[in-house]
Amino acid sequence: MSSHPVAAHEVGEAYLDLHHQLHRICDQAMGAAGLTLARAKVLNRLDDMGPMNQATLAGLLGHAPRSVTETVDALERDGLVARTSDENDRRARIVALTDAGRDASEAARVVRAKVMDEIFGSLSATERASFAALLTRVRTQLSVGERQ
Amino acid sequence: MSSHPVAAHEVGEAYLDLHHQLHRICDQAMGAAGLTLARAKVLNRLDDMGPMNQATLAGLLGHAPRSVTETVDALERDGLVARTSDENDRRARIVALTDAGRDASEAARVVRAKVMDEIFGSLSATERASFAALLTRVRTQLSVGERQ
Repeated sequence: MSSHPVAAHEVGEAYLDLHHQLHRICDQAMGAAGLTLARAKVLNRLDDMGPMNQATLAGLLGHAPRSVTETVDALERDGLVARTSDENDRRARIVALTDAGRDASEAARVVRAKVMDEIFGSLSATERASFAALLTRVRTQLSVGERQ
Repeated sequence: MSSHPVAAHEVGEAYLDLHHQLHRICDQAMGAAGLTLARAKVLNRLDDMGPMNQATLAGLLGHAPRSVTETVDALERDGLVARTSDENDRRARIVALTDAGRDASEAARVVRAKVMDEIFGSLSATERASFAALLTRVRTQLSVGERQ
């Protein structure tokens, strides 16, 4: 490995490249378990936070409402979520997990943890500690920046 | 900071949490420059690789063809890309940057580099070197895993 000074944007690019690979590997692993990453994210979010309307779900996931609608449609066809009307807003629809959806959410968590263990388990305990500390440093800095 | 051993999946979660924040900050910065991250990715990809059909573009970005169509529609309305028909496949459409699109692609790169510099520039030179080395370690390990 070369010892030239590493520019901030080079760390950023390396960070994003790794994310691209992680995303692909997670999606492949989800695919093997009969899910997609997009569906798994919706299921996990509903599992963590309970039933909610689609606009809230889209906001939490940072996705366009239309793409969340497509994912929810697919999950509903597969019996993993059910839609009911919102008693406070007749136009809105509340999305909730079914029992099968809860099982699928748990299965997605297992797949994800297994992928993460495989990937980051290749680091030594010392490397994991440094990595976690660096990630925390950057995140803390970000939070300070956002408050300013 | 506690000195308990850091489990592999904890590093993974910290990694993904940071990515979530980075994504949000980049999207906000793009928004301030009149772009979105999704549009910027399409523009940068066309800038790097030249004109291509939408299916190829969707594959390279790892997005659903339908969501790429929406993004390309918006870019076309704004005069940043133009569609022409593919002489090898009459049903397919080739997407190419316009001159304004090339300028927007460059503007997006500047925004992105600025965000990355702000975020990862908070680390010292030593920390950046360690971070880059750890990211490279994990990526190398991933490549080995994928070849097996």
